[in-house]
Amino acid sequence: MAQDLVLYGYWRSSAAYRVRIALNLKGLAYESRPIHLVRDGGEQHAPDYQALNPQELVPCLVDGGQVFTQSMAIIEYLDETRPAPPLLPADPAGRARVRALAQLLACDVHPLGNLRVLQYLGAQFQADDAVKGTWSRHWIAEGFRALEMMLAGHVATGRFCHGDTPTLADACLVPQFYNAVRWKLPLDDYPTIRRIHEACSELEAFRRAAPEAQADAPAPAA
Amino acid sequence: MAQDLVLYGYWRSSAAYRVRIALNLKGLAYESRPIHLVRDGGEQHAPDYQALNPQELVPCLVDGGQVFTQSMAIIEYLDETRPAPPLLPADPAGRARVRALAQLLACDVHPLGNLRVLQYLGAQFQADDAVKGTWSRHWIAEGFRALEMMLAGHVATGRFCHGDTPTLADACLVPQFYNAVRWKLPLDDYPTIRRIHEACSELEAFRRAAPEAQADAPAPAA
Repeated sequence: MAQDLVLYGYWRSSAAYRVRIALNLKGLAYESRPIHLVRDGGEQHAPDYQALNPQELVPCLVDGGQVFTQSMAIIEYLDETRPAPPLLPADPAGRARVRALAQLLACDVHPLGNLRVLQYLGAQFQADDAVKGTWSRHWIAEGFRALEMMLAGHVATGRFCHGDTPTLADACLVPQFYNAVRWKLPLDDYPTIRRIHEACSELEAFRRAAPEAQADAPAPAA
Repeated sequence: MAQDLVLYGYWRSSAAYRVRIALNLKGLAYESRPIHLVRDGGEQHAPDYQALNPQELVPCLVDGGQVFTQSMAIIEYLDETRPAPPLLPADPAGRARVRALAQLLACDVHPLGNLRVLQYLGAQFQADDAVKGTWSRHWIAEGFRALEMMLAGHVATGRFCHGDTPTLADACLVPQFYNAVRWKLPLDDYPTIRRIHEACSELEAFRRAAPEAQADAPAPAA
């Protein structure tokens, strides 16, 4: 059963990173098939992959022949079909809070810093790396400001975003944090986010999902 | 009970429009409190509203004193607490498909055309209305191309995005369609999207949720 799970991803894709975290938290084995987003104009645009995911984006999960797209939808699917351990709380208000924290990042932060958007800014607005960095930091800072308020000011925040076990929200927080570091966003103003990121980083499930731990990551510079 | 529901929104906000559709489909009465996103620099930035939603975005739903943000999370909350009629199918694969269609729009299309992003393009890249239009049409066309493939090519597509009753996916499709028309995107290439939009438009629940039907919409030009 578990070996039927195939994940098409890319080492540095935030959305694929989220799904890797969820698979690891649930202890699910899966076959990883890397899709290189830059080489040869982007392997995600090849007809074979487009047939799997017409959006030509990663990730894409295949489970026993059925194809699933969109990282949050994939994680909810895994949570419904492999319930232990749960990645969403049991009560509707708690579930809504976890989903809102996840969507704050997955809807209002991450898509703005996605590769295809940065490519468009370069092509249409002649944005160089410095301008792309300013753009990326602006939207991450905007999201992190709100996320910090929602985490620091809420009684349900625990060791993780919601309570003392990791949820869908943490699976979105850690990849976005990785991006924030990559773009050199100063993180002093987000103590709760940093604390939760640290708690996640202590878990093997998060460490094994990290971009640099993937087979398709480039070798570190000597 | 129902009168305890308070929706903070804005007539032309796609995300608020989604929640209005869901509330109407479920036959739930609610009090509408408009937040004007442009007047006085944007009422969403006022301290009273920021205390409700630190993201300073609409919508925000208050249910008996509890505050909920993020339109898809709000709709799933309504579906869990007021299950009839359901806005998600019962089977995990069907639920994943509906969520993926919704997220295609809510994550990968809508946030790029949001007011705050267009304001940033104007301020940082001197984008005028023509350039903002080109930007908006580019991302809607990119999303609609994939959405059309995913709808036209799938056996589960019915009168609506998934089967013959409206779901979360239709609640996202109709507001995005409204935006596509607003930005004058040619729609010839999306026959399935157009057909589903038409089926939705025949329902009172969608018509009453339309931007122009809201109390805070400006009077039509004479």
